[in-house]
Amino acid sequence: MEGEDENRPASRTGAVMDAIRRRIASRALAPGERLPSIRAFAAAMGVSPSTVVEAYDRLAAEGLIRARPGSGFYVAGALPLALAAAQPPVERAVDPFWVSRQSLDATPDMLRPGCGWLPADWMPGAAIRRATRALLRTDDALLADYGATRGAPALRRLLARQFAAEGLEASPDQILLAASGTQAIDLVCRFLLRPGDTVVIDDPCYFNFQALLRAHRVQVVGVPYTAEGPDVARFAEALAAHRPRLYVTNSALHNPTGASLSARVAHRVLTAAAAHDVKIVEDDIFADFEPEPSPRLAVLDGLSRVVRIGSFSKTLSASIRCGYIAARPDWIEGLIDLQVATNFGGPSPLAAGIVLGTLSDGSYRKHLDALRGRLARRRRDVAALLGGLGIRAVTEPRGGFYLWCRLPDGRDGAAVARQAMREKLVLAPGNVFSVTQTAADMMRFNVAQMGDPAIPDIIGRALRAAEAPA
Amino acid sequence: MEGEDENRPASRTGAVMDAIRRRIASRALAPGERLPSIRAFAAAMGVSPSTVVEAYDRLAAEGLIRARPGSGFYVAGALPLALAAAQPPVERAVDPFWVSRQSLDATPDMLRPGCGWLPADWMPGAAIRRATRALLRTDDALLADYGATRGAPALRRLLARQFAAEGLEASPDQILLAASGTQAIDLVCRFLLRPGDTVVIDDPCYFNFQALLRAHRVQVVGVPYTAEGPDVARFAEALAAHRPRLYVTNSALHNPTGASLSARVAHRVLTAAAAHDVKIVEDDIFADFEPEPSPRLAVLDGLSRVVRIGSFSKTLSASIRCGYIAARPDWIEGLIDLQVATNFGGPSPLAAGIVLGTLSDGSYRKHLDALRGRLARRRRDVAALLGGLGIRAVTEPRGGFYLWCRLPDGRDGAAVARQAMREKLVLAPGNVFSVTQTAADMMRFNVAQMGDPAIPDIIGRALRAAEAPA
Repeated sequence: MEGEDENRPASRTGAVMDAIRRRIASRALAPGERLPSIRAFAAAMGVSPSTVVEAYDRLAAEGLIRARPGSGFYVAGALPLALAAAQPPVERAVDPFWVSRQSLDATPDMLRPGCGWLPADWMPGAAIRRATRALLRTDDALLADYGATRGAPALRRLLARQFAAEGLEASPDQILLAASGTQAIDLVCRFLLRPGDTVVIDDPCYFNFQALLRAHRVQVVGVPYTAEGPDVARFAEALAAHRPRLYVTNSALHNPTGASLSARVAHRVLTAAAAHDVKIVEDDIFADFEPEPSPRLAVLDGLSRVVRIGSFSKTLSASIRCGYIAARPDWIEGLIDLQVATNFGGPSPLAAGIVLGTLSDGSYRKHLDALRGRLARRRRDVAALLGGLGIRAVTEPRGGFYLWCRLPDGRDGAAVARQAMREKLVLAPGNVFSVTQTAADMMRFNVAQMGDPAIPDIIGRALRAAEAPA
Repeated sequence: MEGEDENRPASRTGAVMDAIRRRIASRALAPGERLPSIRAFAAAMGVSPSTVVEAYDRLAAEGLIRARPGSGFYVAGALPLALAAAQPPVERAVDPFWVSRQSLDATPDMLRPGCGWLPADWMPGAAIRRATRALLRTDDALLADYGATRGAPALRRLLARQFAAEGLEASPDQILLAASGTQAIDLVCRFLLRPGDTVVIDDPCYFNFQALLRAHRVQVVGVPYTAEGPDVARFAEALAAHRPRLYVTNSALHNPTGASLSARVAHRVLTAAAAHDVKIVEDDIFADFEPEPSPRLAVLDGLSRVVRIGSFSKTLSASIRCGYIAARPDWIEGLIDLQVATNFGGPSPLAAGIVLGTLSDGSYRKHLDALRGRLARRRRDVAALLGGLGIRAVTEPRGGFYLWCRLPDGRDGAAVARQAMREKLVLAPGNVFSVTQTAADMMRFNVAQMGDPAIPDIIGRALRAAEAPA
């Protein structure tokens, strides 16, 4: 079969398709009418019957004609006008969804220093292609079947070994693969939370935590985040005052601040959580950007009340969706039921296989080594560039691609972001990260998305155009 | 880069890995100790430095050693005992999760007439490989980036054209791609339901609807399903009595009965739903198995109160996860926010690209044509085979792979399924589909999974061993 279609001159198939399209457009063939038989039309067009078959197939896939098995091809109904009508973009408040939707749906002419991922050409395309091609040489089951409920066993074994090397003992059966880190957190929230519960988050924190927790209909309490983790006194107060069920955080290269948890703070957070029986989701998706592992709640706690979340969206590919949960065995059983109920089975076995391939052949490690160096240089250069605009990075992250910065003269980040959007530049204003709305003059910059030389001027103009503070 | 690793003799890399493994096992290299330098060990082993680099990389990926950038490789901590300990399988009640988990986690020696999908070798492996290889020749963005929030535009345009050909007018912007049909339904439930709401389902219906709705903490009311759809009188009564917010159903090739909705019933269902302002989820994942489209609620209603759900898991691949939602524009906006919040972005752009490839080049249509004929023959043969065991199909489906059957002498399906499981045969007993538990003597058979000649004898023994009715 392979290559069968490629060897047929595309122009001949296209000519047959065009001929049919013209007849339909001119109503020489009306909706519902039967198309010429394959043999007759091949003779009329001077092409082989297989060329006509392919042309009809493609037109059927487009919906212009329809196949009726055993009866031939027929002209489909008229296309709805709606197909042609583009919808105007939605004007939205600068809320936790603002950055996500502006970034994900950006057109190719937009620049995205506000987004939360690396440019595609920073990702290991060659390694992904190699791993995918290797999978295509394996059996049909991997390409066609549902996976096991926990997800690919070989990838879970590899992750368990990596955790062990880090001092975290977990059996591969304590790891559940999911479609993404976010979906993994969502599953844990579904398992641990009831509507009306209270959840503690960092202030500031990843804006999508607020969006996600809103979907779970829970109350959210913010605790100030410092350069070495949450403010431990305020954390303990919040636990005593609000009796939360859960604390959701990033420990390493915290989003948006780039800070990392210290051992001292980690220990105190766990002690307070134990005193009030609070569970913890430690979202560790930036782990692989660290030069050396910093303290982790999951490692100290040993997956007793802490759940580890990971994914490969930031370091390998966001197109190949694969995240994971590491948790207590009894929780994993409950999480599997929930994942079966809400997604039928785990993540794509093909996706897990591609991830496994790049992790096993060393290409992932090599990519990370190069990436860490490149990002360190870029953080330094972008901090200098922003400094020239009066924008000051308030932390010096040990890895990753974020700089958490203060705007000059108390400028309002949302106003600056709205101005920048007029010049097709997506920014991430501070208050989308702050549940208490106390980061109005802050902004998160993605250093890897700052390469375009037009960016500093646009930011400068947006700063000037944004209303001056009262 | 391509092929670089493949050209290096695997045996040499393996020999280096084995040498390191032996030293670690014998404690000649203790946890935390630095490994020999690459150059020194290459000389000692008589191999090239690149072979040692690869061996170290692979050992690092396994977690046995760790790379410290700029410093070399170190032996990781001891492996936890838990890695070796296999957990015993969980003994579960025969509930809505029973079939899912037994089927998804079946070992290769198990037979699965109870499962809900085709064998891998019935799926179009060559077409999937061709579509995937074509994508690997495109740019890095598709392999590495998040997709747009609605999912791949080209696939949504193609679906909109197919819907138009069927008489369903929908703009591509009214289509939202999701990771699977189940995830799509879950998203719609999140959008439309509040805890404590009531939802109407068919009795019997796909068992996972019950599991999914349980996760949403809603009440469920069953309406008897007939050979042409829900019992319309009972449906109207249920709407008046329980004031449900939602009705969840399959219209074409209903799971498990294989029945299809008639135009008469479809009209009455919509009229009753309008009178009580009930929304409808029409899960259409078996649509492509039909020889000709049967009446659809979404087409009659025009996506006003009906949401169409589709996926390619049953007809193309369950490994390449891609489903979709077609709904009103204002609902789609809300669903996008929810999908961003709970899964960050849509389904894998790679997955959507593979689906688009097989749909565009005609290979999907050819596969379906062949599949329909093969399944028709198989349904006939399996019905005869089951008849010989006293098991009678109660409907004659016009497509698909299910037969909904009555067991002889009022045998209890759950008891038969438990007996069959002892011989590694997964069955789908009737009551897992019935919210009122009124299908005890029924069983759903997947005709495509009945090819193994051992199956009739195992079923016969299970029938005899299952306790006779009181």
